[in-house]
Amino acid sequence: MRVLVTGGTGFVGRHSLALLVEQGYEVHAVARTPPAEVQHGVVWHRGDLLDGAETVALLETVRPTHLLHFAWFAVPGRYWTDAENVRWVTATLHLFDRFAAAGGRRAVLAGSCAEYDLNHGYCSEDRTPTTPDTLYGECKNAVRAVTARAADVLGLTTAWGRIFFVYGPDEHPARLVAYVTNSLLVATPALCSDGAQIRDFLHVADVASAFVALLATDVCGAVNIGSGNPVSIRSVCLRIGELVGRPELIRFGAVEGRQGEPPLVVADVRRLSGEVRWVPTMALDDGLEHTVAWWRRASGPPV
Amino acid sequence: MRVLVTGGTGFVGRHSLALLVEQGYEVHAVARTPPAEVQHGVVWHRGDLLDGAETVALLETVRPTHLLHFAWFAVPGRYWTDAENVRWVTATLHLFDRFAAAGGRRAVLAGSCAEYDLNHGYCSEDRTPTTPDTLYGECKNAVRAVTARAADVLGLTTAWGRIFFVYGPDEHPARLVAYVTNSLLVATPALCSDGAQIRDFLHVADVASAFVALLATDVCGAVNIGSGNPVSIRSVCLRIGELVGRPELIRFGAVEGRQGEPPLVVADVRRLSGEVRWVPTMALDDGLEHTVAWWRRASGPPV
Repeated sequence: MRVLVTGGTGFVGRHSLALLVEQGYEVHAVARTPPAEVQHGVVWHRGDLLDGAETVALLETVRPTHLLHFAWFAVPGRYWTDAENVRWVTATLHLFDRFAAAGGRRAVLAGSCAEYDLNHGYCSEDRTPTTPDTLYGECKNAVRAVTARAADVLGLTTAWGRIFFVYGPDEHPARLVAYVTNSLLVATPALCSDGAQIRDFLHVADVASAFVALLATDVCGAVNIGSGNPVSIRSVCLRIGELVGRPELIRFGAVEGRQGEPPLVVADVRRLSGEVRWVPTMALDDGLEHTVAWWRRASGPPV
Repeated sequence: MRVLVTGGTGFVGRHSLALLVEQGYEVHAVARTPPAEVQHGVVWHRGDLLDGAETVALLETVRPTHLLHFAWFAVPGRYWTDAENVRWVTATLHLFDRFAAAGGRRAVLAGSCAEYDLNHGYCSEDRTPTTPDTLYGECKNAVRAVTARAADVLGLTTAWGRIFFVYGPDEHPARLVAYVTNSLLVATPALCSDGAQIRDFLHVADVASAFVALLATDVCGAVNIGSGNPVSIRSVCLRIGELVGRPELIRFGAVEGRQGEPPLVVADVRRLSGEVRWVPTMALDDGLEHTVAWWRRASGPPV
């Protein structure tokens, strides 16, 4: 079993590498800028998936049996609407096609809850309409539809992990948990919306673990990667406030929520628990404690 | 106004070129093998849209303001399920992106009634679900969804013409009207299904004309390209039989219909007539007469 991981330097992907090595895969990973440090059992390849010729060469060199595709355009604040999304549809379908041509047998790709009509709130793979509200969601959904339908004729099986709300170490500082934690750690007010939105949070290491579990099954199609537990943004912020010891710095209502933001987004995790047979290892309270501790260390000694 | 036409050697696309010249466009067309004969007002470019680098070079050379994209994998009997469909998603989105980057303002792309859930029979752009039954339909629908959503951010407008059932001169001999006509012209039985299926036929020159009309508007999104007139396959065959003078050679019920073939597929043409303000120029009876006459000439003098 030889797996190619894309996005292996990214927020979620980096957590998959050691898990795949543990599972006995020969692990290959591709990045425009591979990390400098040596990782046990991981062979890095320098490559740009947006360059079709590089993808052809990579797949012919590695000839993986398994593919775990996390790479996508992911700059916070821009990824919902940026035209880069279209290029990642092209890059992903080209990668999928070349993976099949090189003898690939099993592909798992990263999707998003943004593929759903989020007005439905509680998102089920088999019932919630996939009428996305954003270019990002539309592009992810298009790749899902094409890869799912093409798998048979390409001679492989494929699954599509729909990521909900991720948090954890090394998160982009503009994202919620990282922003609130870092603000409080440097004793600055954290400007939040009213926090009434209800979401489904999963620690990044658990997200990666769910993908590795999905790769090892023959489950096909979309699978929600979430906790199944609805929590309010407000309660997440308050837990961080408690852990840092500065809950009074959280300013609920200081900023407007994003326009048209849905009140409820929660994953139906029956496929994940029942078919993939995977459940989270980390409760939200523990995951936040672990994350705050990581940021505390990352921020260095108090000045 | 400078238009780039893809698929300009194909069944539908070839009929668009003279119409575009008439409309005053500077017409550029791309094909893997451009035609040998000179066409008034058409500049041909040799190129393979499945080769990303060739697409980049072509768009940088031509820098069209308008795009009319007919090219796709279209081998009868194979195009419903062939993996080439995935490559055409990639090629089309790459073309669309490069068209925008080169300053393109208006793109019209060819879609298909196969994007609809054809169990609905009467297909409306705004109401009939797009849950296709085939890889071909899924791939077309994915391109439609992504291009429609990306148009704004790419700074252009785009429309998507959904082709229903086309017939006319030079049709692939394996397709219905060409097959029945040619069989009868050489006095061989034409083996047909029971012919009860109801379809929406439009002459190929009218299909091309509707696309050229759509290109000149600022109508966005999916537009059915059909006649809006339901006719049975049986009545189409019988009209051909009458025109050739050999109706007794048509063997209804000699072959099974395609499994799961829908009984009714008809276009709602309210967008086409009301917004694009285009109506067919050729009634089916006249179109078939013209087509049979063309095949009679093409077959050469009777032996």
